Amino acid sequence: MNARLKAEVLAANLELPKLGLVDFTWGNASGRDPESGLVVIKPSGVPYASLREEDMVVVDIDGRIVEGRLRPSSDLPTHLALYRHFEKVGGIVHTHSTWATVWAQACRGIPPLGTTHADYFDGEIPCTPLLTQSQVAGSYETETGLAIVDCFKRRALDPLDMPAVLVANHGPFAWGASADTAVHNAGVLELIARLAHLSLQLNPVLGAMPGFLLDRHFQRKHGHGAYYGQAQPAAPDVS
Amino acid sequence: MNARLKAEVLAANLELPKLGLVDFTWGNASGRDPESGLVVIKPSGVPYASLREEDMVVVDIDGRIVEGRLRPSSDLPTHLALYRHFEKVGGIVHTHSTWATVWAQACRGIPPLGTTHADYFDGEIPCTPLLTQSQVAGSYETETGLAIVDCFKRRALDPLDMPAVLVANHGPFAWGASADTAVHNAGVLELIARLAHLSLQLNPVLGAMPGFLLDRHFQRKHGHGAYYGQAQPAAPDVS
Amino acid sequence: MNARLKAEVLAANLELPKLGLVDFTWGNASGRDPESGLVVIKPSGVPYASLREEDMVVVDIDGRIVEGRLRPSSDLPTHLALYRHFEKVGGIVHTHSTWATVWAQACRGIPPLGTTHADYFDGEIPCTPLLTQSQVAGSYETETGLAIVDCFKRRALDPLDMPAVLVANHGPFAWGASADTAVHNAGVLELIARLAHLSLQLNPVLGAMPGFLLDRHFQRKHGHGAYYGQAQPAAPDVS
Amino acid sequence: MNARLKAEVLAANLELPKLGLVDFTWGNASGRDPESGLVVIKPSGVPYASLREEDMVVVDIDGRIVEGRLRPSSDLPTHLALYRHFEKVGGIVHTHSTWATVWAQACRGIPPLGTTHADYFDGEIPCTPLLTQSQVAGSYETETGLAIVDCFKRRALDPLDMPAVLVANHGPFAWGASADTAVHNAGVLELIARLAHLSLQLNPVLGAMPGFLLDRHFQRKHGHGAYYGQAQPAAPDVS
Repeated sequence: MNARLKAEVLAANLELPKLGLVDFTWGNASGRDPESGLVVIKPSGVPYASLREEDMVVVDIDGRIVEGRLRPSSDLPTHLALYRHFEKVGGIVHTHSTWATVWAQACRGIPPLGTTHADYFDGEIPCTPLLTQSQVAGSYETETGLAIVDCFKRRALDPLDMPAVLVANHGPFAWGASADTAVHNAGVLELIARLAHLSLQLNPVLGAMPGFLLDRHFQRKHGHGAYYGQAQPAAPDVS
Repeated sequence: MNARLKAEVLAANLELPKLGLVDFTWGNASGRDPESGLVVIKPSGVPYASLREEDMVVVDIDGRIVEGRLRPSSDLPTHLALYRHFEKVGGIVHTHSTWATVWAQACRGIPPLGTTHADYFDGEIPCTPLLTQSQVAGSYETETGLAIVDCFKRRALDPLDMPAVLVANHGPFAWGASADTAVHNAGVLELIARLAHLSLQLNPVLGAMPGFLLDRHFQRKHGHGAYYGQAQPAAPDVS
Repeated sequence: MNARLKAEVLAANLELPKLGLVDFTWGNASGRDPESGLVVIKPSGVPYASLREEDMVVVDIDGRIVEGRLRPSSDLPTHLALYRHFEKVGGIVHTHSTWATVWAQACRGIPPLGTTHADYFDGEIPCTPLLTQSQVAGSYETETGLAIVDCFKRRALDPLDMPAVLVANHGPFAWGASADTAVHNAGVLELIARLAHLSLQLNPVLGAMPGFLLDRHFQRKHGHGAYYGQAQPAAPDVS
Repeated sequence: MNARLKAEVLAANLELPKLGLVDFTWGNASGRDPESGLVVIKPSGVPYASLREEDMVVVDIDGRIVEGRLRPSSDLPTHLALYRHFEKVGGIVHTHSTWATVWAQACRGIPPLGTTHADYFDGEIPCTPLLTQSQVAGSYETETGLAIVDCFKRRALDPLDMPAVLVANHGPFAWGASADTAVHNAGVLELIARLAHLSLQLNPVLGAMPGFLLDRHFQRKHGHGAYYGQAQPAAPDVS
């Protein structure tokens, strides 16, 4: 069981530099076993080139090490806070990918400006409020996770319909039903962050796309009558 | 016959990621057989790395599947609407390539700012008006194609002299006499979109290039006395 | 003799895509034999991947083909006009490289903003005035070359101290004592154009660097007491 | 002894083009032997592709050549001035890497805008004041080093807590306890310079991140209770 998840989480981590989402050791992916609730995560500060399956760290939901010789990613407490509150989430990715980080540094959410965005994210990708001095001084990484959870609660967002967030002055977190999907969503986030940034340079006061177009595209891929890809039950009217 | 076109359309699709025009599965190319009128298109949501000739979907002009086990691209109705109204077009490409998509998201046509543009596009590359709520709620993909056709009719544009368009809040479509040419034009569009974007950052109120220079370059490659490349009948005066 | 120059000019042309300076077939390099005065240039519209030594076209200074089965680059008359007036120039390169073309499209010269610029270009890299309608209607490519020559004459520029120019609404030409050096200068121009563009985005009213710093760097590499590289006679005072 | 340092400095130099930090021959790395005080540096103007261990130049702190057939980098006097005044520094890198050079050309320090910055640099990365005409006319490369030293003195900066600087109208220098670390810091600087540049394009009046968040991240990696990576003594509270 843990072996399979460790292999999956290793593969997810190795995909991050391939997608151009991490430089040096700046990123990590984790996965959760839906039955045991155990979480597997990348070890802290280990270069991707030398990462092996046995380096993966298995922890319980309180962060106690169950398996592994290395120290887990220093961002583990953020992952755990998200797993605790986002029950359908099975994989989480944190990176400092350029374009998403730029929005985070500017403390701005990414407005939906086109169908590329709408195919994956059901509205503006939120940016958390800045942490307070006491949050930063305390269990900082846990507080980061709680700030994300709180932001989603106040905006009534479903984490699977909005599978990413920007942490102000920091960078993005993305997630999904599995570690693999979380990596994909982190890659999509980066492309959308770039598209939105460059669009605003053409027109700095550009507003969001119409809600009905956003809905159509999000539902086309994710709704009950979804008709994108090969896995969906019914084809659209093509006439 | 279908076999040859399927091979051509496969090759055209595989060229898209090589030219850096698609990420993940976000793009598709199709081709039309001039005699039978049948259209071959990429299947929906299939990764480029695993795409094979037998995956290509053959449909008639009304979208009925003639050959193929997979569901066609969800954008097929847009392709069909264009083939119906642009009779000389033999290949169509849709991508979410970065720089062209940025102009589409900003809902702006690309003004002709230099000879690179003029070598391929006889004027401003248009951006369609936004679709209305009822167009989006209806046969959305067909309506997208009809909006392009309508835009070209109102501007009196010849699709072969203006082989690309931006769909507002969405992304680019490009075309040509064949699938291969459509891919080339999609690649050129992306480069021109980038040049124009960066030029406007140097001078946000930059106007279009002079019409006589635009004409000279477009005619140099596409007019009766064209003298670019090896296929043209006559060389220019070089003295 | 022609064989050696053809090999050099082929190598120079093949270097252009390697340096990221050309897309598709959008660029060409030529070289001049100092003794015979013959010029070798790339054929028009031939893809770089299939370019061979026997494809190179040898012409005299009036553009008459001396050797070669293919039609020369349509930009040949521009090269010839430059060779006629810039007697120390032995190689010329024309590209549509992104960042240099952006400055050309914006019809702006590139101001000297740092030592990278000053190491190669002794002042602002000029942009030619727009060609008039009658210049474009006539021997357009020759007129392009003459506009460059005229621009250098009016500014009293030595082509070897300012080995590049931007043609308004078109793109860059670069040159040097040989085809090889011309390619190097075209590559440097592209990097400098990018640095200057991005610098102006940080500060749109940024002025040129001090003249005494420009001079020091240009002389350090090109002056009598030059001390950069291994070929110079004397080392600088390093204490 | 010198052999080991020459191998290290060669490796550091070869890493520069791999990280995308140098074009052509525009960069150099050096290292200092802590016991002998001798400095090893890249030779001037030699392409990276042909660089070998025996090309490295060994000099004493006054720049006298102790070993090596080639002339040292023309920037050697700047390196030596830094080694003289920054006693804990064991390696120095100079590049013209794009984004860091852009800030240097705009004569602006890089404000701390996010945790990526705070993980490596304890505050704003300074830009030196412009050199005066007499400084440039004199021992220019030495004066460049002294301007950096003076800038750090006036700002009371510890070179190991602020392992990089921008030289106005020129480009970046980075350093560290070893040549290897200096290269890493030069790479980080480039990424941070890009993030900050793009962040300011989203919000040109963006201010620095809160000091308490900057401190937390810098201390998390560099302070007494550091808990990033595998080398640290204690894990953070993960609950």
